[in-house]
Amino acid sequence: MDMRKRIILGSASPRRKELLEQIGIEFEIVVSSKEESYQSTEPEEIVKELALMKAENVAEELARKEKGSQDLRENDCTETVLVSGGDETVGGYLRNVLILGADTIVVRDGEILGKPSDEEAAFHMLGSLQGKMHQVYTGVAMLDFNGNGERQAVCHVEETKVYVHEMTEEEIRRYLAAGESMDKAGAYGVQGKFAAYIDRIEGDYYNVVGLPVAYVYQKMKEFLL
Amino acid sequence: MDMRKRIILGSASPRRKELLEQIGIEFEIVVSSKEESYQSTEPEEIVKELALMKAENVAEELARKEKGSQDLRENDCTETVLVSGGDETVGGYLRNVLILGADTIVVRDGEILGKPSDEEAAFHMLGSLQGKMHQVYTGVAMLDFNGNGERQAVCHVEETKVYVHEMTEEEIRRYLAAGESMDKAGAYGVQGKFAAYIDRIEGDYYNVVGLPVAYVYQKMKEFLL
Repeated sequence: MDMRKRIILGSASPRRKELLEQIGIEFEIVVSSKEESYQSTEPEEIVKELALMKAENVAEELARKEKGSQDLRENDCTETVLVSGGDETVGGYLRNVLILGADTIVVRDGEILGKPSDEEAAFHMLGSLQGKMHQVYTGVAMLDFNGNGERQAVCHVEETKVYVHEMTEEEIRRYLAAGESMDKAGAYGVQGKFAAYIDRIEGDYYNVVGLPVAYVYQKMKEFLL
Repeated sequence: MDMRKRIILGSASPRRKELLEQIGIEFEIVVSSKEESYQSTEPEEIVKELALMKAENVAEELARKEKGSQDLRENDCTETVLVSGGDETVGGYLRNVLILGADTIVVRDGEILGKPSDEEAAFHMLGSLQGKMHQVYTGVAMLDFNGNGERQAVCHVEETKVYVHEMTEEEIRRYLAAGESMDKAGAYGVQGKFAAYIDRIEGDYYNVVGLPVAYVYQKMKEFLL
């Protein structure tokens, strides 16, 4: 890959960092402190919206460092590639940089499960996941700025189905005691002790960890080659 | 779980060791130096046969340590549980121990792919896997000896389908250079850089790593509780 282009991961998640490292990508991490919000109602749309917002926030942050500008955002997000000029926008200040934003949610019976607020919330969340299938959606946004500051944005959502074995209350309590639930959508980490309860998945395993690395790698190639 | 029972992993694979540790099982490793061979022709049967043979070899080794006996084997392997007496067999010398054997193979278009013999073999193996689906089968055998030396044997095969993205020759060469191919059936490790090329799986992810931990955990509970 063309390493003259800077790759920026716009996420503070240690798991996403590890996954990009795992496939051999060299990158920097820049996180925006701006809060994200969404207007979509469908999970597939929400994660794309949030992923793009994270990437846009990082682009704005980087551009502001280059030039003390304030309103540089564009907020375009489609499956197809968009090209826009680079004069008075973020692209006017960014060159040869690819920014990656991502957001992951868990959906059970159509209900969105975020990160649990406390251990009791985590207990109820796991209780509602055991013995059935749920979906994990990760939205990915890539914001690419070429050598002329031209901007291309691609958004994508990856779905993985996860089938959880039945768990007793005691097993849920014991899992909670392992301390893996907090700070994770759905209150579990597929890569830890919860492996004992995952009968089957359908889709990209790493999508459940937090980043669909095969999609990210294959799409990145298009921007970097 | 009842930790008065010794759990023995009969495998030298560092990945199987890590997976059992990941789900919090306490165990010892005992590996037999005996060669395994198989008579079955179907992949699903071969891995069960090899897994049982590994477990039997370990049981024999353990029993021999207890008493210098020579021919203690039984070789029963079914999906259902078998009970046999414990007098003049391995069980006569083993008490409160659960032995786990496992074997993993990769099957593409009905052809069994083992560990590659050298880098050229690995190159051709990966070339035949790219752009299509293949199956990973892990056979698991559990040999349980209760407090009276009574033996129960359970065998199981777990199938996971793996969909590999298209790879260029250059990508295959680069992956080989990463040094993850040798000593792995199918010449790849799902948990390393190869993640960039795995679009999707159907089944237990950890089965591809080398051990279907959800099955193992759930079945072990029956022997230990």
